[in-house]
Amino acid sequence: MFVLLLHNMILQPLVDIAAICAAKNVTEFVVSSGSRCAPLTLALVRHTAIRTRTISDERAAAFVALGMAQMSGNVVGLVCTSGSAVLNYAPAISEAFYQQIPLLVITADRPPEWIEQQDGQTIQQQEVYGKHVKASYQLPADYTHPDAVQFINRVLNEAINLAQVYPCGPVHVNVPIREPFYPEENEIMQFDAQPRVIEEISHSASLPRPAYMNLANEWLTFSRKMLVVGQVTPDLELRNALYACCLYNQMPLVADLISNMHQAENAIDAHDLFLMTTDEQTKKDLQPDLLVTVGNSVLSKNLKTFLRKYKPKQHWHVQKAGKVADPFGTLTRIIRTEPAEFFTKLGEQGYFEFMNQQPNAFAEAWLAQQQNARERFVDFFKNTAHFTEFGALRHVMQALPDDSHLHLANSMSVRYANFLSLEKNKKIGVWSNRGTSGIDGCTATAVGAALQTEKIVTLITGDVAFFYDRNGLWHNYLPNNLRIVLINNRGGAIFKMIDGPARQPEADEYFQTRQQLTAERTCADAQILYHKAENDAELKAVLETFFAASEQAKLLEISSYTEVNAAFFREMKKQFV
Amino acid sequence: MFVLLLHNMILQPLVDIAAICAAKNVTEFVVSSGSRCAPLTLALVRHTAIRTRTISDERAAAFVALGMAQMSGNVVGLVCTSGSAVLNYAPAISEAFYQQIPLLVITADRPPEWIEQQDGQTIQQQEVYGKHVKASYQLPADYTHPDAVQFINRVLNEAINLAQVYPCGPVHVNVPIREPFYPEENEIMQFDAQPRVIEEISHSASLPRPAYMNLANEWLTFSRKMLVVGQVTPDLELRNALYACCLYNQMPLVADLISNMHQAENAIDAHDLFLMTTDEQTKKDLQPDLLVTVGNSVLSKNLKTFLRKYKPKQHWHVQKAGKVADPFGTLTRIIRTEPAEFFTKLGEQGYFEFMNQQPNAFAEAWLAQQQNARERFVDFFKNTAHFTEFGALRHVMQALPDDSHLHLANSMSVRYANFLSLEKNKKIGVWSNRGTSGIDGCTATAVGAALQTEKIVTLITGDVAFFYDRNGLWHNYLPNNLRIVLINNRGGAIFKMIDGPARQPEADEYFQTRQQLTAERTCADAQILYHKAENDAELKAVLETFFAASEQAKLLEISSYTEVNAAFFREMKKQFV
Repeated sequence: MFVLLLHNMILQPLVDIAAICAAKNVTEFVVSSGSRCAPLTLALVRHTAIRTRTISDERAAAFVALGMAQMSGNVVGLVCTSGSAVLNYAPAISEAFYQQIPLLVITADRPPEWIEQQDGQTIQQQEVYGKHVKASYQLPADYTHPDAVQFINRVLNEAINLAQVYPCGPVHVNVPIREPFYPEENEIMQFDAQPRVIEEISHSASLPRPAYMNLANEWLTFSRKMLVVGQVTPDLELRNALYACCLYNQMPLVADLISNMHQAENAIDAHDLFLMTTDEQTKKDLQPDLLVTVGNSVLSKNLKTFLRKYKPKQHWHVQKAGKVADPFGTLTRIIRTEPAEFFTKLGEQGYFEFMNQQPNAFAEAWLAQQQNARERFVDFFKNTAHFTEFGALRHVMQALPDDSHLHLANSMSVRYANFLSLEKNKKIGVWSNRGTSGIDGCTATAVGAALQTEKIVTLITGDVAFFYDRNGLWHNYLPNNLRIVLINNRGGAIFKMIDGPARQPEADEYFQTRQQLTAERTCADAQILYHKAENDAELKAVLETFFAASEQAKLLEISSYTEVNAAFFREMKKQFV
Repeated sequence: MFVLLLHNMILQPLVDIAAICAAKNVTEFVVSSGSRCAPLTLALVRHTAIRTRTISDERAAAFVALGMAQMSGNVVGLVCTSGSAVLNYAPAISEAFYQQIPLLVITADRPPEWIEQQDGQTIQQQEVYGKHVKASYQLPADYTHPDAVQFINRVLNEAINLAQVYPCGPVHVNVPIREPFYPEENEIMQFDAQPRVIEEISHSASLPRPAYMNLANEWLTFSRKMLVVGQVTPDLELRNALYACCLYNQMPLVADLISNMHQAENAIDAHDLFLMTTDEQTKKDLQPDLLVTVGNSVLSKNLKTFLRKYKPKQHWHVQKAGKVADPFGTLTRIIRTEPAEFFTKLGEQGYFEFMNQQPNAFAEAWLAQQQNARERFVDFFKNTAHFTEFGALRHVMQALPDDSHLHLANSMSVRYANFLSLEKNKKIGVWSNRGTSGIDGCTATAVGAALQTEKIVTLITGDVAFFYDRNGLWHNYLPNNLRIVLINNRGGAIFKMIDGPARQPEADEYFQTRQQLTAERTCADAQILYHKAENDAELKAVLETFFAASEQAKLLEISSYTEVNAAFFREMKKQFV
């Protein structure tokens, strides 16, 4: 049936965008309302295979989309109107870029002849995200020529493919749209059920056996090998491969909490504690000759500082494709292959018969440090009675439910959590926006994640990050599996913990960002169940039911006091330096 | 006295930045706390001539700075830390760029060798604001060579000068900073009292008399001349010049409320009403042969649509320098001179003796429309009893105190206000973010404005704009001269007012951004006195004291209902089409 009128022929290419997205499995969209993007929004909303949510603050909308894509692993779409709306996406886009999360960012625009002609909501949108997207595409403003229609199809295909090519990331499609924006009442949007789809299928990234053998021959020449895992998303295959490799080769597997290795036996996760030491000999004993790394950023400042000073002779980094960072100034070899496969082979008994399986002093030194640090850490908590945010967070981490997800906000929350680590028997996916490590979208990201799983998603956050991103809660989709644990010390306490700023007389006003809010009213506004804890007993009582299924999202606010925390933290550090 | 140690020598160039800013009269800064920017913040805070305020959310911080610069006319400085913080400035920067507001945007950065090496809060900051700044500068990371120190001095001078060259705008200075960030306890920051300052003094922009005479000769050939004023900041000299010119030449002076011409006698300000007409003859009677324009963007959609269709034979635009827009597709001549001077001469009896002083039918047609529209408008309100947001706003506008400032949020608020206009006898400065016309920073901008004047600053805003920018209220500097009038219709009602979207079944969820919040809790959190009005009597009672001096900022929330408003608005339109 041919129901389209001429007017709708103008809108048809925008309707086609929805059809291509659906055909390419981009079926989750977050839109922010506006005039110019209305026809696109309508097309998405009316496509039965696409789920569309609307969030007003584009900054929060983009972080919600990021959280959704992070959790699901799928490309999530964003649509906003023209003008400064587009710029509000930028923080989340840069986070997606560095955290390698696939986003399809569609921005409505005026046609080129009306740019900078003083019409409302008009800026220079082409290439507006600069170096923080994998690519920027500009669609044509006119679709009368069939080549233009084909161009739109090709660009959408290309953009969606590119977002998913490793390393994944955001792509930007700028869409000039002419008026009229709305179909007439009698017009029906007709979606092409089978639009042209360009599939992209990739070669495997296996190393040929001779290349492995060469690496293995060199590998054998090192006796102090260690593996450091940067941030990786939960991945059982990779975890097993790394674990097997380290076990078989008797090498320490050093992994921050955000590396999602806490369930790997004997993984070193207390390095952020014991590497505080100022004892030179201890550090020399831990210095590797071969450092092998995989994954994205390393969280532990103490580990970074250690590796930057106690450099390995060689540093191999395993990454299939994309830009490789050199975070310690040690990198000597980039190995372009699939990490899970690479480490599986290095851990397989039959593959390299000559592998070193003997227990060695180096691996044992790391394990000894690990065990010792954990023991001292437990003792330290036993011997202190104060109610501190660190202590409270320890209880929270212990109370986290099995088979759930944990989101860690920047920047104190994720650092605390890394000191504390998780129990080995709990299957908990750990997430944190460590692409740019901003505080700007931590709440919205956790909201997005909770929208894509049935499991409990717990966000641990501080007050500055929480109130900064209040608009992450300002919409009609707050999932009831969301739990927020808010450590409220009324300011950026991190600056009181660090020596330099704490010494400055201006610390209170200019570094701590004194702020007086509690989350109670924010929760009432967002219809989140609010709990608070100001001492151990209250905390214990709340935690008993906090993670149970609920009809509403919940927030637990833990009040803490910077002076007490800072003193506690200093005391804790003293145990390890 | 030479108190600086070697360590401080590293920080000295950053200390110099503060000294140069002070010497160049950039003495107001808004900073957002962070680690990397700490030495800069410290230097600014410790400089006795500089006033520094700290606001956590960089998006809000930048809009506060924009409001300050807008109100004071001076360059205002911004300082933030590295990473996505920088991107949160972007919406305000684009607004400043198109609204031509001078901002000195200083972003702390890691030194180049650590960019994209997986350290926290690191993005590609060079040129990050793209086309929305007047210039981007990159400071050196190392200051050991004296040329580097001189370079820093020169760049700061150049940046501050450029921000103030007409058309004013934002400039970006990216500052790589190495650790350590903090001076030792015994170190004193020593400010150069007389750093090298580069002054920039400009030629006048007068047209030579022969050029005037040529223009005047042509001018005489037109009998249907009209002047349209775009957005201009309150400027008595310009207003008098335009008024005198139009009076002397018997031409209509058509000006939106944001043109700050409402005190000019006989200025046409009801054009947004009477140009709704569908009567062709009326419009032909109003068609100019010479259109003269001055100022930035025109707000009235009806005026734009009229001029785009009923084009003048010639369109002269008077603008001293910078890019010129062609908003109606009519532009034929750009006159590069100072508008106040140009129009003063065109209005001076002695300057061009031959000027047309006879009353003419064209000017009278405009005045008749104006008078008729205002009368019908008053009648219309007399004959309707509903409590609507439009009616409520009319009372608010009438109650505004003399000698005060009015900030109009995007997008419904400023449109409503333009229909309503202001009483001629009240000296009220009218402001609105019509550079990009975003809703994103309207509250923060008004806050910034109120920080730079003792007068009452009233913000009229809608609920989507208000909650979007809640963080504009999240700091410790809320001025008590701030008054917020919030029209809360629980969603972007503008979409219900416009024909196209109102017709779509998805309007409620996807265009209106249904939202349920009232501002009461936000006010309690921000320590703003909260008032509400749900009917005429309540409104009247609140308005009696609302604008009186107070120790706290105040907010008046007017509840309104979209259906009633939409019906009222349709009815109103009927009077004019």
